[in-house]
Amino acid sequence: MIRAEIIAIGSELLTPSRIDTNSLFITGELNRLGVDVVEKHVVGDERARLIEAVRIAIHHSEIVILTGGLGPTEDDLTREAAAEALDRKLVRSPEQEEILVRRFQQINRKMADINRRQTFLIEGAKALPNPYGTAPGQFLRTSTGSVFLLPGPPRELKPMMHEQVIPLLRPMLPPQVIRTRVFRVTGLGESDLDALIAPVYTKFANPTTTVLSAPGDLSVTLFARSSSEAEADALLKEAGDPIAQLLGERVYSNEDDPLEVVVGNLLRRRHATVATAESCTGGLIAARLTEHAGSSDFFTGSFVTYNDLQKQQLLGIPKDLLGTYTAVSEPVARAMAEAAKKNTGSTYALSVTGFAGPDGGTEENPVGTVFIGLAGPRETKVRRIRYGLDRARIRLLATQAAIDLLRHELLQDC
Amino acid sequence: MIRAEIIAIGSELLTPSRIDTNSLFITGELNRLGVDVVEKHVVGDERARLIEAVRIAIHHSEIVILTGGLGPTEDDLTREAAAEALDRKLVRSPEQEEILVRRFQQINRKMADINRRQTFLIEGAKALPNPYGTAPGQFLRTSTGSVFLLPGPPRELKPMMHEQVIPLLRPMLPPQVIRTRVFRVTGLGESDLDALIAPVYTKFANPTTTVLSAPGDLSVTLFARSSSEAEADALLKEAGDPIAQLLGERVYSNEDDPLEVVVGNLLRRRHATVATAESCTGGLIAARLTEHAGSSDFFTGSFVTYNDLQKQQLLGIPKDLLGTYTAVSEPVARAMAEAAKKNTGSTYALSVTGFAGPDGGTEENPVGTVFIGLAGPRETKVRRIRYGLDRARIRLLATQAAIDLLRHELLQDC
Repeated sequence: MIRAEIIAIGSELLTPSRIDTNSLFITGELNRLGVDVVEKHVVGDERARLIEAVRIAIHHSEIVILTGGLGPTEDDLTREAAAEALDRKLVRSPEQEEILVRRFQQINRKMADINRRQTFLIEGAKALPNPYGTAPGQFLRTSTGSVFLLPGPPRELKPMMHEQVIPLLRPMLPPQVIRTRVFRVTGLGESDLDALIAPVYTKFANPTTTVLSAPGDLSVTLFARSSSEAEADALLKEAGDPIAQLLGERVYSNEDDPLEVVVGNLLRRRHATVATAESCTGGLIAARLTEHAGSSDFFTGSFVTYNDLQKQQLLGIPKDLLGTYTAVSEPVARAMAEAAKKNTGSTYALSVTGFAGPDGGTEENPVGTVFIGLAGPRETKVRRIRYGLDRARIRLLATQAAIDLLRHELLQDC
Repeated sequence: MIRAEIIAIGSELLTPSRIDTNSLFITGELNRLGVDVVEKHVVGDERARLIEAVRIAIHHSEIVILTGGLGPTEDDLTREAAAEALDRKLVRSPEQEEILVRRFQQINRKMADINRRQTFLIEGAKALPNPYGTAPGQFLRTSTGSVFLLPGPPRELKPMMHEQVIPLLRPMLPPQVIRTRVFRVTGLGESDLDALIAPVYTKFANPTTTVLSAPGDLSVTLFARSSSEAEADALLKEAGDPIAQLLGERVYSNEDDPLEVVVGNLLRRRHATVATAESCTGGLIAARLTEHAGSSDFFTGSFVTYNDLQKQQLLGIPKDLLGTYTAVSEPVARAMAEAAKKNTGSTYALSVTGFAGPDGGTEENPVGTVFIGLAGPRETKVRRIRYGLDRARIRLLATQAAIDLLRHELLQDC
């Protein structure tokens, strides 16, 4: 197995607010080639530490990727430290210098002298062009593997990874086909999902299975590795079909489309439209439904009615109904959905009313209780859900549940 | 200077989707004690690599914090690897075993045999109680410094950091006062902010300055370190006062309150209310204004009107006005804000209409053009803003700009 290690360089990555996101991107790219990342480091702009980190990484792993520290200033130590760790010299590259001088000419600026540091290459290294920045990357083979030096800014690093690093690595690796199968799932929690499908996926070492989780939204990806596409697909089928069966209609997409896109497409295909009337979600459902361009095809409008008076004035909910049942109730959720549908002339309307907390709630309907209404062409349905106590989470989960309720309805109304 | 190193343990942290967020939290806590984090590692569940990483870290840094890998399974190697790196034995702790047995009794479950692994301590280590999980932490002094073993789940780690680690570290560190001064800023971009205040803050090594950036939202924090509070405050004053002056009213908070909380408090204090009428922001302003509990004090409701017909039906915008000026125009933004104010009886109303793209736009008002209306007790104002081309960013920036427009108005209307 080929193993990779990533070293991110820069003192700013050792502050409480900065995350090394480059390594996540690089890991994803390497995984697709069948390479595992086995260790990651973040090192500040400190020469001795950096040299030691590079030395150990080269000793341990076949592929070592360094990111950052290729700028023109004294703080940018990656070139020097990597050269020293490899016991090689740094040599001036007239070719790289010419490229850089030309680059500065193109943007009508004079190259500062310190930029010349960026044109030094480690002895034996191949320069990797960087179309979006001044620092070229570097690639060199050692007796045990490959070392890459890449710039830190993601908009420079990402294209270089695609255009330079992957094409250099691919021929070094055993020929391998990677195929994936994705299930995007909503309507159950991460641990329930795992309890449901772990008995299947743990039986397989290939494909491997990863589960990504956001509030109310899960993504299961199977990765099959093989020497042929047909075999990889067969592996995906063997492990994936039973998972598909267990998950059933809770799978809302086998592509990487988010839920609101799937529901938008279902509405479009049926020439149907949707409106919302929102209380505790405060406009989040409308914001989700309009997140992508073209949503005016199916979205007719929304009312955010946050208290009883607004429910009366904006939606025409009878005062009596609110008095008899209170705002957080099945009849009010029903009336809100029906009013939103009627007032906007939509095919469907979603409503949400609930106690998002931390205050409010009754004995019957404590904080976390949410009623979701869906008015459709033939009838109005209302679902009552109990969530936990976290306000932000209740709002996100209720938003997701409302959009998913519409999805289920649309799947039946076809 | 006391230096710390963090090692996060777990193969799941080496996947493309998982970030080691614990280290950010720990870094923040250590920085407040005057300790810098100089290196971070992520190591998988691999015994040899882990032992070497711990050995090197102990050799390099006075404080070493290991997170994760304290679970009960075979994969959980942190205890064993740390013991071996330190050349110490792992010893059974009858006391910890009793605590764990009692814990399982409390939740009416029988303790599995494998959980007994969690009660072994490294020779000489002090157990750190973990009220939210089954794995106790461990603390030990070596000849050169301190080593902490902490559980990986953030809800276990965070309280242990506060209740165990910080109190243990504080007496070991030189007495030092850390004082901070925060400026939360909106209405200018990160590079403009930096161009404005860098000439001031770069003059000072103490306080240090960090800038955090989210779309339309910046946070500038000055950290002053000193042996006395008075001196730290004097340092903050010296560097902070000129920054405060340069930023002026663009500073919306000197606490860590987000913009919608500041505006909510300003509304509350004036017994005033706000409504919204949103087109391209699709409900995001309403969602922001209702994000925190108690927003019904000042929020009267919202209309999301995404096309011309909705603007007519829900808000009563005259068809003629839309025909003459089109929906993305100063007069329509004005009419939307005034209609939202009138229909909900609010003191203020915000409206947004614009081209969020990627399609739409005219020569006069290309994609990225947004009109923000604010109807108030005396008059209605409309601002025209041009943003870039990214749809999600336009929506976020317009949301922020609208709420900030209301803030400026409230500061004047007092």
